[in-house]
Amino acid sequence: MKIQFLGTGAGVPSTSRNLSSIALKLLDERNAIWLFDCGEGTQQRVLKTAIRPRKIEKIFITHLHGDHIFGLPGLLSSRAFQGGNTPLNIYGPKGVKEFVLTSLRISQSHLRYPIFFHEIEEEGVIFEDEQFRVSCMKLNHGIVSYGYRVEEADYPGELQAERLKEQNVPAGPLYGKLKNGETVTLPDGRIINGQDFIGRPTKGRIVTILGDTRRTKNTVVLAKDANVLIHESTFGKEDQAIAADYFHSTCIDAANVAKEAGVKQLYLTHISARYLSGNATQLQKDARRIFENSKLVNDYDEFDVPLEKL
Amino acid sequence: MKIQFLGTGAGVPSTSRNLSSIALKLLDERNAIWLFDCGEGTQQRVLKTAIRPRKIEKIFITHLHGDHIFGLPGLLSSRAFQGGNTPLNIYGPKGVKEFVLTSLRISQSHLRYPIFFHEIEEEGVIFEDEQFRVSCMKLNHGIVSYGYRVEEADYPGELQAERLKEQNVPAGPLYGKLKNGETVTLPDGRIINGQDFIGRPTKGRIVTILGDTRRTKNTVVLAKDANVLIHESTFGKEDQAIAADYFHSTCIDAANVAKEAGVKQLYLTHISARYLSGNATQLQKDARRIFENSKLVNDYDEFDVPLEKL
Repeated sequence: MKIQFLGTGAGVPSTSRNLSSIALKLLDERNAIWLFDCGEGTQQRVLKTAIRPRKIEKIFITHLHGDHIFGLPGLLSSRAFQGGNTPLNIYGPKGVKEFVLTSLRISQSHLRYPIFFHEIEEEGVIFEDEQFRVSCMKLNHGIVSYGYRVEEADYPGELQAERLKEQNVPAGPLYGKLKNGETVTLPDGRIINGQDFIGRPTKGRIVTILGDTRRTKNTVVLAKDANVLIHESTFGKEDQAIAADYFHSTCIDAANVAKEAGVKQLYLTHISARYLSGNATQLQKDARRIFENSKLVNDYDEFDVPLEKL
Repeated sequence: MKIQFLGTGAGVPSTSRNLSSIALKLLDERNAIWLFDCGEGTQQRVLKTAIRPRKIEKIFITHLHGDHIFGLPGLLSSRAFQGGNTPLNIYGPKGVKEFVLTSLRISQSHLRYPIFFHEIEEEGVIFEDEQFRVSCMKLNHGIVSYGYRVEEADYPGELQAERLKEQNVPAGPLYGKLKNGETVTLPDGRIINGQDFIGRPTKGRIVTILGDTRRTKNTVVLAKDANVLIHESTFGKEDQAIAADYFHSTCIDAANVAKEAGVKQLYLTHISARYLSGNATQLQKDARRIFENSKLVNDYDEFDVPLEKL
């Protein structure tokens, strides 16, 4: 599981930061990539990464502002052009379907794959399978804006084959039962409980990706104990009032959420173009005074989300 | 009058060529820029040029394929964000208005300037003032696709003040009448015809910008005697059959149109991503065997369109 930032700017693109898009790379886990938001130029950013558009399985839209959705029609078209023929699922506020379908219809873009739209009607779980659960809650941004919490299922512990061999338990179909935690009787009469030979489970990871928002309680709920919290940081600490006026957050807001929610890592993104590369680092400095594991991210930055033993 | 190519690729972006957009820079003539097509990422290209979005006065859309229009909503939004408050006129096939208005409505983008849509209903003159006339004709591209011919009015010759001084014609309000070609009587009784003291007029320029098309008669009509013809060259000469199948042109098609129409300069754009920088130059070579003044263009290339004395 890796996270790659495709666009880390706010509102309008700058020469260094493109518009919002984040790739959650689940290649090892499910040979798929999930995209969060898709500002204009996302497909051009993707071109310069190792991401194959046909691997994009789901796109989650936090809110419908143009800097978060205007790249959708182009990305969808290019995905078809580049051999994508598997279904694509799009999750987001009501309106995303009309925007996409109108764009594709008027441009006469004929995709070679189906798109399933999941317009969110209420907070809660919006996707769940054996591996992952995605839930959402509303934030506070003037326009409907969601935060997403992606929870990975725990990995069961592995069978400790070495220990079984040491105790002369013969390899074979028995191991399958032991791995499932069953109790078995050996040919020599010994009774073995599989549970005693299974290592500790590995905790599934939690990644929380928030849409644009000002401070609101739900951010902490969504981020609770997350391995990674991705929080907007449109403004710096000196612009707290402006941030609130424009329904945005500062680096201080983001750091406070991270601290309160007890996350492991905070990534600050959605940086206003007013902060050039030099003074953008000030946002990180200020955030770290509150929450040490804060990192200001740039376009193309990629980070691993490590598994941790329980 | 200058022409700057913002995107010279076809269909999908590549790392070197972005999607279609051409700026006709009329800064000296009317302190304005006209844009022809607006593929995704045009606003990001604009950022790296001297073009100010608020100077964009008119946008002409050749056809509604995504690689020619998906950059519109973002550019319009950023134009507002960056202080644009003057009206904008958009010309193009029926459908462009619905695409733009749907995108702006769903993204809740509130522009600070009016947009006037001019959806083309028939071929002919679509804009005319004292300086410029723009006309259009249909091309052959499977979807409705227009070619645009921009004609500048001739510049009247200048009053030859030096010659008048030599003949002791006193400077003053008289000169204004002479400049208008009137006949005046001097205080000393001489009768002077302004026509005799006006230099040669300067011919207005003609720039023809074609949408995607395969060979069709209208291309030559639109390009007749143009100073500049901008013609798509999606494919090379070996792919003539593919070009026709996909309603596109080769460099050979473009060169033949330029030759037949008697243009001064041909720019080849809309280059398929299959031609990397190395072998794209072959398109230019092949075109030059037919029409010497052929030039393959790249993103950001800028060319002057010089005035010529009659």
